Amino acid sequence: MFAEIKGLNEECGVFGVWGHPDAAQITYYGLHSLQHRGQEGTGIVVTDRENLSIHKGLGLVTEVFSKGEIETLHGNGAIGHVRYSTAGGGGLANTQPLLFNSQTGSLALAHNGNLVNAESLKLELESQGSIFQTTSDTEVLAHLIKRGSHELSLVERVKSALTQVKGAFAFMVMTENQLMVALDPNGLRPLSIGRLGDAYVIASETCAFDVIGATFEREVVPGELIIINDEGLRSERFSEPIHRSICSMEYIYFARPDSNVDEINVHTARKSLGKQLALEAPVEADVVTGVPDSSISAAIGYAEQSGIPYELGLIKNRYVGRTFIQPSQELREQGVKMKLSAVRGVVEGKRVVMIDDSIVRGTTSRRIVSLLREAGATEVHVRISAPPITSPCFYGIDTSSTSELIAASKNVEEIRQEIGADTLSFISVEGLLTGVGRNTDHENNGQCLACFTGKYPTKLYDLGTSEQKPVKC
Amino acid sequence: MFAEIKGLNEECGVFGVWGHPDAAQITYYGLHSLQHRGQEGTGIVVTDRENLSIHKGLGLVTEVFSKGEIETLHGNGAIGHVRYSTAGGGGLANTQPLLFNSQTGSLALAHNGNLVNAESLKLELESQGSIFQTTSDTEVLAHLIKRGSHELSLVERVKSALTQVKGAFAFMVMTENQLMVALDPNGLRPLSIGRLGDAYVIASETCAFDVIGATFEREVVPGELIIINDEGLRSERFSEPIHRSICSMEYIYFARPDSNVDEINVHTARKSLGKQLALEAPVEADVVTGVPDSSISAAIGYAEQSGIPYELGLIKNRYVGRTFIQPSQELREQGVKMKLSAVRGVVEGKRVVMIDDSIVRGTTSRRIVSLLREAGATEVHVRISAPPITSPCFYGIDTSSTSELIAASKNVEEIRQEIGADTLSFISVEGLLTGVGRNTDHENNGQCLACFTGKYPTKLYDLGTSEQKPVKC
Amino acid sequence: MFAEIKGLNEECGVFGVWGHPDAAQITYYGLHSLQHRGQEGTGIVVTDRENLSIHKGLGLVTEVFSKGEIETLHGNGAIGHVRYSTAGGGGLANTQPLLFNSQTGSLALAHNGNLVNAESLKLELESQGSIFQTTSDTEVLAHLIKRGSHELSLVERVKSALTQVKGAFAFMVMTENQLMVALDPNGLRPLSIGRLGDAYVIASETCAFDVIGATFEREVVPGELIIINDEGLRSERFSEPIHRSICSMEYIYFARPDSNVDEINVHTARKSLGKQLALEAPVEADVVTGVPDSSISAAIGYAEQSGIPYELGLIKNRYVGRTFIQPSQELREQGVKMKLSAVRGVVEGKRVVMIDDSIVRGTTSRRIVSLLREAGATEVHVRISAPPITSPCFYGIDTSSTSELIAASKNVEEIRQEIGADTLSFISVEGLLTGVGRNTDHENNGQCLACFTGKYPTKLYDLGTSEQKPVKC
Amino acid sequence: MFAEIKGLNEECGVFGVWGHPDAAQITYYGLHSLQHRGQEGTGIVVTDRENLSIHKGLGLVTEVFSKGEIETLHGNGAIGHVRYSTAGGGGLANTQPLLFNSQTGSLALAHNGNLVNAESLKLELESQGSIFQTTSDTEVLAHLIKRGSHELSLVERVKSALTQVKGAFAFMVMTENQLMVALDPNGLRPLSIGRLGDAYVIASETCAFDVIGATFEREVVPGELIIINDEGLRSERFSEPIHRSICSMEYIYFARPDSNVDEINVHTARKSLGKQLALEAPVEADVVTGVPDSSISAAIGYAEQSGIPYELGLIKNRYVGRTFIQPSQELREQGVKMKLSAVRGVVEGKRVVMIDDSIVRGTTSRRIVSLLREAGATEVHVRISAPPITSPCFYGIDTSSTSELIAASKNVEEIRQEIGADTLSFISVEGLLTGVGRNTDHENNGQCLACFTGKYPTKLYDLGTSEQKPVKC
Repeated sequence: MFAEIKGLNEECGVFGVWGHPDAAQITYYGLHSLQHRGQEGTGIVVTDRENLSIHKGLGLVTEVFSKGEIETLHGNGAIGHVRYSTAGGGGLANTQPLLFNSQTGSLALAHNGNLVNAESLKLELESQGSIFQTTSDTEVLAHLIKRGSHELSLVERVKSALTQVKGAFAFMVMTENQLMVALDPNGLRPLSIGRLGDAYVIASETCAFDVIGATFEREVVPGELIIINDEGLRSERFSEPIHRSICSMEYIYFARPDSNVDEINVHTARKSLGKQLALEAPVEADVVTGVPDSSISAAIGYAEQSGIPYELGLIKNRYVGRTFIQPSQELREQGVKMKLSAVRGVVEGKRVVMIDDSIVRGTTSRRIVSLLREAGATEVHVRISAPPITSPCFYGIDTSSTSELIAASKNVEEIRQEIGADTLSFISVEGLLTGVGRNTDHENNGQCLACFTGKYPTKLYDLGTSEQKPVKC
Repeated sequence: MFAEIKGLNEECGVFGVWGHPDAAQITYYGLHSLQHRGQEGTGIVVTDRENLSIHKGLGLVTEVFSKGEIETLHGNGAIGHVRYSTAGGGGLANTQPLLFNSQTGSLALAHNGNLVNAESLKLELESQGSIFQTTSDTEVLAHLIKRGSHELSLVERVKSALTQVKGAFAFMVMTENQLMVALDPNGLRPLSIGRLGDAYVIASETCAFDVIGATFEREVVPGELIIINDEGLRSERFSEPIHRSICSMEYIYFARPDSNVDEINVHTARKSLGKQLALEAPVEADVVTGVPDSSISAAIGYAEQSGIPYELGLIKNRYVGRTFIQPSQELREQGVKMKLSAVRGVVEGKRVVMIDDSIVRGTTSRRIVSLLREAGATEVHVRISAPPITSPCFYGIDTSSTSELIAASKNVEEIRQEIGADTLSFISVEGLLTGVGRNTDHENNGQCLACFTGKYPTKLYDLGTSEQKPVKC
Repeated sequence: MFAEIKGLNEECGVFGVWGHPDAAQITYYGLHSLQHRGQEGTGIVVTDRENLSIHKGLGLVTEVFSKGEIETLHGNGAIGHVRYSTAGGGGLANTQPLLFNSQTGSLALAHNGNLVNAESLKLELESQGSIFQTTSDTEVLAHLIKRGSHELSLVERVKSALTQVKGAFAFMVMTENQLMVALDPNGLRPLSIGRLGDAYVIASETCAFDVIGATFEREVVPGELIIINDEGLRSERFSEPIHRSICSMEYIYFARPDSNVDEINVHTARKSLGKQLALEAPVEADVVTGVPDSSISAAIGYAEQSGIPYELGLIKNRYVGRTFIQPSQELREQGVKMKLSAVRGVVEGKRVVMIDDSIVRGTTSRRIVSLLREAGATEVHVRISAPPITSPCFYGIDTSSTSELIAASKNVEEIRQEIGADTLSFISVEGLLTGVGRNTDHENNGQCLACFTGKYPTKLYDLGTSEQKPVKC
Repeated sequence: MFAEIKGLNEECGVFGVWGHPDAAQITYYGLHSLQHRGQEGTGIVVTDRENLSIHKGLGLVTEVFSKGEIETLHGNGAIGHVRYSTAGGGGLANTQPLLFNSQTGSLALAHNGNLVNAESLKLELESQGSIFQTTSDTEVLAHLIKRGSHELSLVERVKSALTQVKGAFAFMVMTENQLMVALDPNGLRPLSIGRLGDAYVIASETCAFDVIGATFEREVVPGELIIINDEGLRSERFSEPIHRSICSMEYIYFARPDSNVDEINVHTARKSLGKQLALEAPVEADVVTGVPDSSISAAIGYAEQSGIPYELGLIKNRYVGRTFIQPSQELREQGVKMKLSAVRGVVEGKRVVMIDDSIVRGTTSRRIVSLLREAGATEVHVRISAPPITSPCFYGIDTSSTSELIAASKNVEEIRQEIGADTLSFISVEGLLTGVGRNTDHENNGQCLACFTGKYPTKLYDLGTSEQKPVKC
């Protein structure tokens, strides 16, 4: 849904539980709360200590598990995954978790992120006779583990495999009798540990803990491999610690407002970004409105700081489904709208501050400005709670390629003209860091800022060698 | 969706268009914007001047018209309907519009409202040999029209039939070559006329006009019968004018915030109710939060008036679908939540003002108060932007029977204890009228207040004679 | 399936049971055995003595009752219906049984046949204000019953209604506490009574009795109204007896070979027709083959009488479903075939007698002759086990209109040329009667021969006044 | 369908085409004609010379390709597969063709048969780090090919892999620009080559050629590897020739009567078996009837040889679908039948010869004998057109294990008592060979007789080492 509006896609969510008699059901609720991170497909694998069982499919969690499948998944350990929506390259085969059965034991994997050396690893493995069933990065890790020396323990083989993959990853690997969880050395993706009675739970976002009644325990540390089994949880390291560089977009756009990312509440961070934006780019106006849903918090903050009333100037239709019939060009010209409406009763005759969280290609912003003007807004002042996105992401965010990023080739004034706003301002990189509550040291502030600055926290490996984008997650 | 949370159901929405080459498609978009008024079923009838064609089904507009059915509905006049979700008594047969074909011409009907003398009319018609196919009120009107004297014109027969039915109704009747639109003499339900180029459009709410690019023309007047055909629109009366008594719940709860009801913007009215509530029932607190989605506007108003910051303290999961698996009692006790989450990062350690739009049975309010406390709120002050609901509705709102209305048997303090709030206040009836922008003359203020005051604007006829509720709309 | 091949459609099947605790399930198996009589839709109504409950839908019996619906239909009386497949005019609304609930009691109806005065009755009823929900004949009877004088008992009103309808009908009418069964005065359609323990069962064909383990009791007599309730079965008459005129096509084409129609086994009758055909139209040949499935019995008879070996020269693909992709014209020309294949190994280099049961438009016969020749048959001799069809049916068989009946405008030699056969013969009308085992008195032989002779056993009433065919059954 | 009646399952069908612009569509019709060989799932892979595309799913060909999927499969080479229905161990993952994409080229495989050393090969491959995605034999071949030395050409690697697998196999392997076809050295499974204009077609049965208008060219030779590409067809050998041992059950039971297997027409062979049976086991009786569908040809032969009339004494309901509700034990005892009915009008008071093609567990035969007696047969003489099945099949036929084969533990008289027949005879092994038209040399007659004689044409390798049956095909 966001994807259509934004051209900016989240890259999946993972959830795991160990030691709970209703592991599959707990995972169902956990994934359901992470549904905003991916709507294309979902799956759950459980272990009953003798076998791993799986059910997965294309669609929402409530759709894929609509016919009693959950009841057939017995066991007290489980991992699950939600996958983001993509036009091509997806499909059932790439839906996760991946499950590999063999005579020497089974292996299930779920992954959020993107490996930057997946292609070269895959080429090497294929030249040795490995057969890949999916186009997903995740399978690379499985092959590396399976190819590991049989003299090593499974944990050692997993650690060895983790040192070979590079990029952004939050991995969960489950066998019949243990659950392993790993975060990349830069900590680019979010991953938290919680407790639910005696059980351990792992999730991409803490909102999943609230939904199932679990308590937050701690973040997974970059470079850490956590092993959970019936003897409890133990922590190992597969990499030296590096400064954490968690994705800034989690705060700006992706995560649910009720989640804490790296122990910072997302709604609160967004509201602060709105306040910061009001300080950096004030304007005289009558109403502040936010683009639903992700810019609401920033709009409230902007309104509170500026003293301009916050209003519902834009309404999103909640019932837009997969089979929605798009209006013909003709009807569109006659004024038939979809998804988003401007509220005439609120904006007519008013100077409007419209808060949005980012501009990718600029087409959506132009459309919303136009909606507001058609509904009678006399002025439209656009304020963006992210800095201009000038560089593509290689860590799991499906930003369009550089050529499609409007801020890669146009300056602010040119973008303003393009979207038809009266004024336009972006928050500064410093403002972003301040808003989230970080120090503003560009090198070591806890966040990845690569899409704004072009400074990537890791080496980029194969990127550029292949035009075909790998399937991320 | 509201139904599950509230126990308070809207009673359908209607949409019509005359004189547009894409009548069915326009109706599709119109109904889509009225989807919040009914999610059980939907249908569209079109006329190509020779025949009426229909497609209807159970489900959302996007589901029922997901396979190209719209393209098969040719014609430049159309009426459509969305029906609310009900546990029993519904089903495909009662989905509207109803279409009656006969050798003397076809008749399609769509209806929003509830007749208070439907049962006695039906009994009389059946004793004369009429056969009813549905349990819906709407069919009664069809029989009355068909039974009318054959010496009268169709318009005269429709007028005669309209004088026999009592209660709340916004009716649309379409034949091969005309569209008739009628509103009950008290104007209990909303119904507006708009223009789309040369075409006329009719809708339960004005948000439908915005979506299709139409402009608002005027409200349908209580007691008015509008006839639209190729010669244009003409207005007749089937009843003397009575003071308008539009349903107060449209402002408080049902209508979309971007609609104008009786020419008053709903978001603005709700925000005023919130301000009024802040004046009537102030409290010392740290944050104001609203129960999504319908109480957001009032919460913004309360915050603005009181100076307490407005925050997203409650989040609604957007992905709760029909097939959502309800957690077992055991999991629920362990803390598994659904649909609504409190945002710990926002409410922890705070004194919270929680704005809701109404209390029906009280169970939902209790649950939300409890969610907020579990998330760490130190105080929870509940403020309701409607007066206590003490009497059932007979005009199309599916309020529970008197025995289930908590405010019918308990006073405010007792309700406060029941829901576990620190303090509880309802807006006063005067405050409601003031907030919406009416005079406060109880007899003649433009709104139906029966559910708060027990004073019904019409005689009640058969009610009480039959235990079995008729199917409304 | 037959419909596509033949252009000759059966007109529905009915089944009823009274006094069995598993009435719905018994009806399910009964309808299942009558599925060949109609594949478009099906439904079952049960009575638990207080209410009538219904489930119906489009599709096969196994499809419509695939999700446990049978278990929800409680009661020990039931009626059911299977409806034939039709291009237009059908749909769910016309699926039977029809169920009419009213405050004075409920009424369910199921019907096999066609009324010849339905249009004029309907016009009269509509002019009195009746509203018809369907385009089916069946509803006419319901209105006539409901309009009957309220001083009469229901049985009297049913009898009165039955005297007003003309044509072919096998009706079942069920209320909360009785089941009424009627056959038209000419007995044009088959209808039998059986016993299942203490319960009574009624079915269009006796194969339904075998499937459920019931025993045949007797045929329903033309002009008889049977009333079954808890006091047992009683017989009344609504019409004087007339010579029975059961549809000849039941023997030739429609009924299942394991049914007895008017106490004559269908397979045996067909085999006799084949023998008779061999006597009337012998030919020198190497193999006899029948067009599956309906002509197999006649082919066996022809082979036995002629001494020419019977072989499987034509094979029907059992897996042709609704969604079968038709080959493009281009692929068809390249030889891609559907549904029916000639067996090269059997017919190559052989003189083939191809037995078919009827020729309607001739296109199917031409295609089959051509298939046989392509597979190497040196001669193809077509023998038809029905006389030429020269007149349309008004009693419930969907024969094409006169203009489409090839035998209405062409003689045997012209038809032979059209279908490309070496020789062609039809059985004679006398041969047909002899084969079935009747006397050959044209006026009083027990069968309707109208489609062969143009002599209709009833007056035809409205036919010819309306171009639009009513929906039969 | 057969599976439910017999407990004897066919093991899949394969189809391929090279050089036709409508390759996917041709494959659709080809697979459709092979549907009797497997109803669980199906799939098609096409090559457009740059990429391989796939669509597969669970269900019949018409169901899996019901929504325009065929149109999305562009290319002029294709392979397809139908998979048999199995209770467990199946599922979408095992549906074929299997498609493996890699940076060094893609590989699609389809397989009919069963490898007897699959388990040991798999164990060895897994210990080398290979990951298997399916439990199917087919994937083993893919890994062997991929693991082959990279200094060899693909054709050489395929040949090397084919020498490592043992058992029964008809393999098709397709890459972007060639189609390879191989038959096991014993030729246990049928596989034919045809021409369709300039295109080559390959199919498990020749009926597929008739349906698409292709002409039969020749059988694939045991041990042959055929390579088809744009330069034409060339034949190589991967194994020395061995006497052909084609599965006898293809003649007796599996293949369609219109197919030629090893150049012998199946209907003709079956009819000869019936004649042979009449010679070996004559009996005095009034009618001969066959169990539909597979025993009809043999029954015709028996009747022709014996002079006893052939009749339709048993009727199969064509509308038994997947969702058919099985009668409860109670209803079954009351006589509710399914699928198969005896025709009372044919068998009542008659001495019946019932021809069936095999007895596996004996339960089906007992039920049919009982059906005939209930319908009034005075004597039931069972004649089986196969010898007693005493040994399990390891080559792809899902015969029950030895313990379930009634003829493994009981003699003919004991079986007769078990099934309740008056007399029972099986055809002799010599009679079987004579009937099909072979010499009767037990060692070298062209057919595999292992299930009758226990003499397997190949070494059996891992069988017996593993209790868990591999997924065949």
